[in-house]
Amino acid sequence: MKERVKRLRKLLAERELAGLILRVNESGQSTQPNNQNVLYLSGFGGSTAVLLVTRKRCFIIADARYWSRAKLEAPDFRLVKVKRGEKFSNFINEALALAKLPESSKVGFEADRVPFSVAEEWKKNLSVKLEPVEMLVESLRQYKDALEIKHLRSACRKTCSVYREIEALVRPGMKEVELALEIDSRLRQHGATDNSFQTIVASGPNSAIPHHATGQRKLRAGEPVVMDFGGVFAGGYCSDITRTVFVPGREPDAQMKEIYKVVLEANRRARLALTPAMTIVDYDRVARDYIESRGFGKYFTHGLGHSLGLEAHDPFDYKNSSLDVGTVVTDEPGIYIEGVGGVRIEDDLLVTANGAVKLTSAPYWRF
Amino acid sequence: MKERVKRLRKLLAERELAGLILRVNESGQSTQPNNQNVLYLSGFGGSTAVLLVTRKRCFIIADARYWSRAKLEAPDFRLVKVKRGEKFSNFINEALALAKLPESSKVGFEADRVPFSVAEEWKKNLSVKLEPVEMLVESLRQYKDALEIKHLRSACRKTCSVYREIEALVRPGMKEVELALEIDSRLRQHGATDNSFQTIVASGPNSAIPHHATGQRKLRAGEPVVMDFGGVFAGGYCSDITRTVFVPGREPDAQMKEIYKVVLEANRRARLALTPAMTIVDYDRVARDYIESRGFGKYFTHGLGHSLGLEAHDPFDYKNSSLDVGTVVTDEPGIYIEGVGGVRIEDDLLVTANGAVKLTSAPYWRF
Repeated sequence: MKERVKRLRKLLAERELAGLILRVNESGQSTQPNNQNVLYLSGFGGSTAVLLVTRKRCFIIADARYWSRAKLEAPDFRLVKVKRGEKFSNFINEALALAKLPESSKVGFEADRVPFSVAEEWKKNLSVKLEPVEMLVESLRQYKDALEIKHLRSACRKTCSVYREIEALVRPGMKEVELALEIDSRLRQHGATDNSFQTIVASGPNSAIPHHATGQRKLRAGEPVVMDFGGVFAGGYCSDITRTVFVPGREPDAQMKEIYKVVLEANRRARLALTPAMTIVDYDRVARDYIESRGFGKYFTHGLGHSLGLEAHDPFDYKNSSLDVGTVVTDEPGIYIEGVGGVRIEDDLLVTANGAVKLTSAPYWRF
Repeated sequence: MKERVKRLRKLLAERELAGLILRVNESGQSTQPNNQNVLYLSGFGGSTAVLLVTRKRCFIIADARYWSRAKLEAPDFRLVKVKRGEKFSNFINEALALAKLPESSKVGFEADRVPFSVAEEWKKNLSVKLEPVEMLVESLRQYKDALEIKHLRSACRKTCSVYREIEALVRPGMKEVELALEIDSRLRQHGATDNSFQTIVASGPNSAIPHHATGQRKLRAGEPVVMDFGGVFAGGYCSDITRTVFVPGREPDAQMKEIYKVVLEANRRARLALTPAMTIVDYDRVARDYIESRGFGKYFTHGLGHSLGLEAHDPFDYKNSSLDVGTVVTDEPGIYIEGVGGVRIEDDLLVTANGAVKLTSAPYWRF
């Protein structure tokens, strides 16, 4: 963590900022922490706190629910205790005062993570000059360090073990939700603390819906089933894998077989072509060109991949960044024919000086 | 859903707004939808879209991953298709044009949900005059309609079934994470699509940490274990329950027994005192006064309860709102003695004209 704060301070110096304020809050149905930058820099995994990182010091501002965890998980950050019923921003000011930042200091805040109304309240009440910044900590997070790579390798390995167990369970008559329950339970048995996103099990015509809402439909012999899932494992690192299988009991349709082969070949070509410093647009192009050459271009309706780390969709600065050494990116081409069916195959790749290393060893379909 | 849009339009008219723009995006480790207002109004459960609700029309603006789901789940909303690689705001403008809103129209956006940088981009690029609004759809969501109450009742009932199974499993030597895995798997077996927050299992001294991060610690005979968990069930409705148990094999410590009884009595008093139109501060006061009278005031370090619905922490306008008929609120007093242990007991209550109805029937500890 100390190394990460050091790298952030270098960025602060370049931008002539005296510090950065980061805010994590709960968000979404499962009231999860909505800012993994806080976990990345401090180790704090709770869902409500503010960090202040200045050129010399680090503070964590938290309410009583999180005092123990802040001390335990973020020992390098000095705890400023928020009192019940008082404004959070008063205590950010307390930290700014402890850091001895004068009123003329320019301090950054994460403009793509802080709601408009909170930014307006801070502008009014905080004692320093606020500057919106974007993709600052995210630009550090793109390049995984040795510990992060270890965690991601392990998360992918365990997820592939789950897949091997699941593959054997697929049979006609089983409901999508039943298969998803098997996946979710086994992810936890293999050590996941959570799903890295809601498990997608899309069968038959539903497989043509890239982000299908897993439902009550029963699997039928011979049809494709897209399974897209992942877990949150040690350190908070996420896996993300998709495999398409065919329900046993009948030979798959010739068109779906062809589509499967095209998608798998697109996945393979993209992986082999991936070299450090390639842009994500060029990477996407490799798979897209091949799928277009086989006549399915208009059915590949989403991007080839996204960054992976502390979030299933890790932040990635598409405009200013390329797939440099240390990036972990998904390789997930898909072909979706509405009303008929679809295929997606997704692996997780680590970019090294020698090209892409595949972290996901789950088997593909064998016709 | 139509009734909800109608109620929103009444609020828009009161505020002289020509429409409201709502944005849902993925957020947090599990890339969940971060704005349940979108689900509430439209039925759309995907994680990336924008809604435009005007006085007369409804639009959903989504990319290709969500076209099928938008049509299926939000049939009352006209789909505007976002093209790959183009700015989302261009398509919000397309919807504004289809709605025939002139440039002088005042259109609200959710200032507490839209990041600062997105609001700034919209202000620059959208064709109408934007006005920040807060707690508009949230103020509707506080009062649950008949369907929502049905879903919440069912979610609570299933979660209590899980608790009854779990209670019997607690034994010395079991790890916190093992108990959490049992809870998480059984929630899914009972129909949950997700946890409504990360399951807390806090044993021995960890029970004094209100939001403890469930870990590898092994349970010991006689010590308290706080279990706080819930699931996301049909319709996306969340349950949230806490029970404290004592590990079998040894008589619990006299102080922990006393604390348990004080917390349970505080929970009971708050439930019995809850009448419609009570403020959340007065509701909290009932439990707090009792705990203070028993000498544990300084150990009750958080609020008594929060609203519950499509989110485990449903939005609630603390400043302008009270606990009126239709509100669902948690009743969760706790006493936490650092280094020693703690007790929390949480029920979910529905406010009716005749007072609070308890939705959670899980048994309390019997000494």
